[in-house]
Amino acid sequence: MGYQESRVEGRNEVIETFRAGRTVDRLYVQEGLKDGPIATILREAKKRGTMVRFVRKERMDEMSQTGTHQGVIAVTAAVEYASVEDILKKAADRGEDPFLILLDGIEDPQNLGAIIRTANLAGAHGVIIPKNRAVGLTAAVARASAGAVNYTLVARVTNLRDTMEDLKKRGIWFVCADMDGTVLYDLKMTGPIGLVIGKEGSGVSRLVRESCDMTAAIPMKGDIDSLNASVACGVLAFEIVRQRRMK
Amino acid sequence: MGYQESRVEGRNEVIETFRAGRTVDRLYVQEGLKDGPIATILREAKKRGTMVRFVRKERMDEMSQTGTHQGVIAVTAAVEYASVEDILKKAADRGEDPFLILLDGIEDPQNLGAIIRTANLAGAHGVIIPKNRAVGLTAAVARASAGAVNYTLVARVTNLRDTMEDLKKRGIWFVCADMDGTVLYDLKMTGPIGLVIGKEGSGVSRLVRESCDMTAAIPMKGDIDSLNASVACGVLAFEIVRQRRMK
Repeated sequence: MGYQESRVEGRNEVIETFRAGRTVDRLYVQEGLKDGPIATILREAKKRGTMVRFVRKERMDEMSQTGTHQGVIAVTAAVEYASVEDILKKAADRGEDPFLILLDGIEDPQNLGAIIRTANLAGAHGVIIPKNRAVGLTAAVARASAGAVNYTLVARVTNLRDTMEDLKKRGIWFVCADMDGTVLYDLKMTGPIGLVIGKEGSGVSRLVRESCDMTAAIPMKGDIDSLNASVACGVLAFEIVRQRRMK
Repeated sequence: MGYQESRVEGRNEVIETFRAGRTVDRLYVQEGLKDGPIATILREAKKRGTMVRFVRKERMDEMSQTGTHQGVIAVTAAVEYASVEDILKKAADRGEDPFLILLDGIEDPQNLGAIIRTANLAGAHGVIIPKNRAVGLTAAVARASAGAVNYTLVARVTNLRDTMEDLKKRGIWFVCADMDGTVLYDLKMTGPIGLVIGKEGSGVSRLVRESCDMTAAIPMKGDIDSLNASVACGVLAFEIVRQRRMK
């Protein structure tokens, strides 16, 4: 497991962080703010004995990594990356077939955050991202995930393809999204599955695609090339949810 | 129809703008750039007699509204809003049941862009947004739409609910997304339909919800409240696509 200090910014995000039971090392609150959400945050901080510092708006703006702190910044002890084993254990603990989401080089924090949010709500057991050439669990990602980073296991691996080959030996099937594939509604995606989403713009890389057992195409009627990566992930993830419900 | 000047920033977006046949008034290109995509853009500009100005990076950064111009900014004559009639006509011209996407106060340009992209690819005939308290067709939206704003009709209306009441008299059924609704897979969404997506955070407003014929719930297994608005729109829009294909 890797650890790193992390900042959580914005009201909902800070409230979610407290409610998820994560340790907040320090809480910065903008001087003069006294509204309801701020009162809630201060109450949570008091309950947990969190150190609170009131600072001026200019200083908050300087500290902010996202530019949208809304008057609160929490410094948490760590964003804890999980291991692939942790993710498989979560599926086993729930008595469910593994449902993983693998990201082949997502670079946009908004997209990674939205995908972690989708993974959480679709009941996926975890998200696997590569260590290089991809965004990690930054403050902007945490914020875009609307708190889902606190509940969803995210593992970082050195080589996505090696991880996939290991997981295939353990019975997991991989499906990637690609225009040239089979229409997703015609695929059977009810067993242990890893859904692979490609990079914004260029899609799934050739080597990763070759490691996939199935290629799913979202039927496209329009004039442009592709859906936003997080939207494509949502459409595919919920088709898996639909098929599992129907089974 | 309303008109306003608009800037298009970024390589793919500028190429898409040319290819969609939109009039580019002026094209700004960063001095010293000579790579493939820039060459393509300059070729397109020459073909159409577009005025090109080469400017320094600092000046490009100043002009940029998105902060990610990638060395090219095109100033287009107008972003043309369509009317609701235009959207219905498009459905009639294609001989299809109308499929509209209505947004009840989306404020995030990334989300609006991703939704227009989804509308395009799901074969929706247009997007309807309110004039107030919502983001319009800004440069950031155009960019997030990956060029889809050039192909997808977007109408702005004064009062979303009045528009819905008018459209109901013309046979369109409305479905909105809400956690308390019927699981979307159990709804029949194959006829003339308007899909209503609520605002980030607060969802569909009460009055608009009361004008809907159906409420669709995306089944949620997770720990947080809701999907990203553009992801929820994608899941619902493609369930409509799936049902229309199966019909």
